[in-house]
Amino acid sequence: MKYTITHTDGAARRGRLELPHGVVDTPHFMPVGTVASVKGIAPDDLHAMGAQIILGNTYHLMLRPGPEVVTEMGGLGSFMSWDRNVLTDSGGFQVYSLAHQRKITEEGAVFRSHIDGSKQELTPERAVQIQTQLGSDILMAFDECPPSQADRAYHEESMARTTRWEKRCKEEWLRQAGPGSLFGIVQGGLHQDLRARHAAEIAELDLPGTALGGFSVGEEPALMWEGVQHAAPLLPAHKPRYLMGVGTPEDLLRCAMAGIDIFDCVFPTRVARNGLLFTRQGRLQIKAARYARDPRPADDKCTCYTCRTFTRAYLRHLLAAQELLAFRLNSIHNLAFYLDLMTGLREAIEQGTARSYVTGMLDSFAAGE
Amino acid sequence: MKYTITHTDGAARRGRLELPHGVVDTPHFMPVGTVASVKGIAPDDLHAMGAQIILGNTYHLMLRPGPEVVTEMGGLGSFMSWDRNVLTDSGGFQVYSLAHQRKITEEGAVFRSHIDGSKQELTPERAVQIQTQLGSDILMAFDECPPSQADRAYHEESMARTTRWEKRCKEEWLRQAGPGSLFGIVQGGLHQDLRARHAAEIAELDLPGTALGGFSVGEEPALMWEGVQHAAPLLPAHKPRYLMGVGTPEDLLRCAMAGIDIFDCVFPTRVARNGLLFTRQGRLQIKAARYARDPRPADDKCTCYTCRTFTRAYLRHLLAAQELLAFRLNSIHNLAFYLDLMTGLREAIEQGTARSYVTGMLDSFAAGE
Repeated sequence: MKYTITHTDGAARRGRLELPHGVVDTPHFMPVGTVASVKGIAPDDLHAMGAQIILGNTYHLMLRPGPEVVTEMGGLGSFMSWDRNVLTDSGGFQVYSLAHQRKITEEGAVFRSHIDGSKQELTPERAVQIQTQLGSDILMAFDECPPSQADRAYHEESMARTTRWEKRCKEEWLRQAGPGSLFGIVQGGLHQDLRARHAAEIAELDLPGTALGGFSVGEEPALMWEGVQHAAPLLPAHKPRYLMGVGTPEDLLRCAMAGIDIFDCVFPTRVARNGLLFTRQGRLQIKAARYARDPRPADDKCTCYTCRTFTRAYLRHLLAAQELLAFRLNSIHNLAFYLDLMTGLREAIEQGTARSYVTGMLDSFAAGE
Repeated sequence: MKYTITHTDGAARRGRLELPHGVVDTPHFMPVGTVASVKGIAPDDLHAMGAQIILGNTYHLMLRPGPEVVTEMGGLGSFMSWDRNVLTDSGGFQVYSLAHQRKITEEGAVFRSHIDGSKQELTPERAVQIQTQLGSDILMAFDECPPSQADRAYHEESMARTTRWEKRCKEEWLRQAGPGSLFGIVQGGLHQDLRARHAAEIAELDLPGTALGGFSVGEEPALMWEGVQHAAPLLPAHKPRYLMGVGTPEDLLRCAMAGIDIFDCVFPTRVARNGLLFTRQGRLQIKAARYARDPRPADDKCTCYTCRTFTRAYLRHLLAAQELLAFRLNSIHNLAFYLDLMTGLREAIEQGTARSYVTGMLDSFAAGE
């Protein structure tokens, strides 16, 4: 892995991340392919929208189809016929949010599958082993993401354990010696001193990249932006910075301005399936009756397949009829919108106009139609 | 509309049907786009698989989004961004199979919408008016399709009324004077003398094409094949013959050999969503555990996007996880399989080898893997 920052504009960075399956231009948004599929989206759709890396979920894939099957089929990319890069999370987040009867000890997490109730275990070592089996280009360290209501004492205890876990992850990753790069994760919630302490501990591990975890877990957006603005500069400057599980178009713009390079979030695809479309003129609830005879595309500046081909009237009809095609077309548009937003931001950073690009976009979103 | 039979081989015919939105090469299979969408499939998928005409359902479209919206958006093809031909049924079949509290009188059918319970009416005149509003290239006459358990007396009464209805359809179609062609429908169940009588009555109307209705409504396949074999030659030889709502790959081959030119059926897409895939080596229940690590495409002779891109192992995983992409990929394959089957048959008819093509395919299906 090689990371080159080609331009900066304030705290924002324009970079080139060279990974085993090609270059990722940063800032970049990663579509989420939870169970070896970006919901409703095929690899050629991802190519058309310019995605250079997608995210896979270790928790889901370890349960179904299982890491051995994925390995046998040539790794996650080959299995799903995606020839560019894949980042996998460590599975930790889903253990806390999805699994049943979870128990956390120094060793790791024991839990029951939300699918069939089977007993499962994830340790730092196992999380790295599975991600190696999946053939990930970027592996994430196994951490704990404390719930948003956790008190300061719990954060301190959890952070210290997470640091010990990430050390074990690094050892296992060195032992595996695969082609993928391991990223560390910094926790600490909204406590700025804890974030600073944890950032220093994780920087100490000298891993190829760093992520911020534990943001966008229920706090107000303004608090999250403030937290990221404080935490991003604490991460090693010459390494890629990844903000996990964030967020809205506004979040991406603000946090990229704070120096974040990579994002992922289920938000654009999840809301697409409910008919919420992002446009340069703000959000569109496509099921509203006012679009029933609207001959315009969702966003007339968008060049995605959906906007090139279909009217709002048709998208509204498909959603009203709960047709399968609605989920795909809306998802294509929202993902293309996110990726285009990052393309525009990269160009603006190159030209030193990032601040006016972001202000212009935020104003345009807020102005509505 | 112009129909030219370029080759015959036994009772089988190879034709060119010239319609307002291009040529349809017959025998041809029409994918079913019930609610202005072939479930899970986009227009570029339909292009890629070589579809020249699709079917839309008048009953569904009159309820949602309503014919006025479709007209305002430029007709059904324009609404769904499909630039080739569209055939619409008359709505009759769904009135009998889906609607609530239906009442049939000489005037037509009164019923309640299965979506919102609203009171609706379909008469021969209204069915033609709606199909004209939808901008159909082929309109179907409004008929009654008696239930499979109906007795002979009911068939006779219903047939006579259907003939009167089809006359009224013709009058309304002439009054509308749109670019679409009206096809008559021959009923009569499995009673050969009734089929013959009704075929003569409908031929009398001298409409541009003729359909066989009331087959594949619960009878054994062999009885259906026998019925079609008897009835097809009773239809005007120089006009296109359409067998409504049929069927399996076997049905298509056998009935095309009996002289049928056009087919439609929800079967290939409906079963695709449950993981049944057709191949030249028979049927594949893709969710079977034996495919979990199968690196082969669904059908190694198929050139569809699904078979060019994905393994059985991946298709099995997608279906097991009930991922949206499963429904699309399986539907693309099954529709491509149907359309390819007809392409192969057209070439065989041109070469005078239709019988050996059909026998070879049927043997290959039956031999299994």
